[in-house]
Amino acid sequence: MKRTLKVVKIGGKLIDDETRLEKFLAAFARLKGNKILIHGGGSMANRLSLKLGIHPQMVDGRRITTAADIEIVTMVYAGWINKQIIARLQQHGCNAIGLSGADANTIVARKRPVEKIDYGFVGDIEKVNISLIQTLLSNGLTPVFSAITHNGNGKLLNTNSDTVAAEIAIAMSELYETKLFYCFEKKGVLKNSEDNLSVIPLLDFATYRHAAETGSIHNGMLPKLHTGFAALERKVTEVIIGDDTILDDNTKLFTRLILQNEN
Amino acid sequence: MKRTLKVVKIGGKLIDDETRLEKFLAAFARLKGNKILIHGGGSMANRLSLKLGIHPQMVDGRRITTAADIEIVTMVYAGWINKQIIARLQQHGCNAIGLSGADANTIVARKRPVEKIDYGFVGDIEKVNISLIQTLLSNGLTPVFSAITHNGNGKLLNTNSDTVAAEIAIAMSELYETKLFYCFEKKGVLKNSEDNLSVIPLLDFATYRHAAETGSIHNGMLPKLHTGFAALERKVTEVIIGDDTILDDNTKLFTRLILQNEN
Repeated sequence: MKRTLKVVKIGGKLIDDETRLEKFLAAFARLKGNKILIHGGGSMANRLSLKLGIHPQMVDGRRITTAADIEIVTMVYAGWINKQIIARLQQHGCNAIGLSGADANTIVARKRPVEKIDYGFVGDIEKVNISLIQTLLSNGLTPVFSAITHNGNGKLLNTNSDTVAAEIAIAMSELYETKLFYCFEKKGVLKNSEDNLSVIPLLDFATYRHAAETGSIHNGMLPKLHTGFAALERKVTEVIIGDDTILDDNTKLFTRLILQNEN
Repeated sequence: MKRTLKVVKIGGKLIDDETRLEKFLAAFARLKGNKILIHGGGSMANRLSLKLGIHPQMVDGRRITTAADIEIVTMVYAGWINKQIIARLQQHGCNAIGLSGADANTIVARKRPVEKIDYGFVGDIEKVNISLIQTLLSNGLTPVFSAITHNGNGKLLNTNSDTVAAEIAIAMSELYETKLFYCFEKKGVLKNSEDNLSVIPLLDFATYRHAAETGSIHNGMLPKLHTGFAALERKVTEVIIGDDTILDDNTKLFTRLILQNEN
């Protein structure tokens, strides 16, 4: 029987909320067994950009990563946020080690090809190298990834952190029975985005496709659901979406994705 | 017989000089066998501070690290500079992994006690945990340390990078025959700080002490020499000081520290 592995993504709005971040880190540190954390950067990169007089450029809600931007997101994600999280997990007795995709060549990406739009230093993941990650896990360490990757040719790339989490979970499924947790500020996928208690407990692929087409699921959730279902299709055993309480075994309110309705 | 290990510190002025940095990284990547790189941050942290309207506070030539400063140096050293170096070493075929002292609890420091002056978030090293570093080396990886440490209690600390290099070399001497290289912008310890060819090829401890007392060695060199001699006293087999060419075997111009003149 394969050993189990929990791959946990923490969203930017939780990182921005000091009280919830502290609760999350304490709960993550308490998790037993093999685990990996992935984080984005929240609003800190935007704040630093603005202080430096650089205004983020967005096209259709997606950020263009210029040479100045990749410097800023690398400083914020792989620097301050990653090392803060590591120091605080160490304080909680969790032997964490911070990585970007460049470190030990763990995540190789390709600069997104220029079609209509040049997204700049944005990377689409080509390969997750699992052997070092396994070595770290088997030495009792907890890898903590920022969403910075590299192209193997000297360039750092900005990569969506939901995608980084899903691709790590998929790749690690070769060696472990892997569960993927998306932790964000809501209690799950909501029927009514204004009502935090209207959580859909079980969401199957057909219902998601239908809801995406009719617009009945909040737009911001769609990429997370897209990567979540892709992970289930590629051997990840469970995908859970919810807030910082989903790491506790006795939490009842969250969304679990399923490929097919079991009824 | 113990295996050998090269511990290499690269100075800030080399990091600031793109041409010399590239030559250094190519030479470092070509080095055979076990190796570790340690870097500081050069002038980039100062430039970022000034852009953010924060003026570095110095007392007797030593920097006070405020809460804003530790954020900046962590972003710059552990973020942009560390990940840039990692991506470029990967490009040169060197399987590098970037670490701060918080990562895997590798370097535990103590916040410098407040006596006359409160240096703020500055750490004096208490312990280097060598087992993970050995695991990485024996898996063919090259650890690259930024000079950020932690206190085990959730706080990141700024630590002198010459000291980080020396303490890593000293700790690793338990397992390896360890050589320490200080690479900076000069060809070695100079008799005449204006003349880059006036390199002292062999510098013994008594001569260093005498020169330090009479002021005949440039002030800026003294901390490097202090840590270098301390490393020799604590089982590091060789300490070499010079520019980016000292990693080449056929380089003749550099300074080697020796405890006692062998003549």
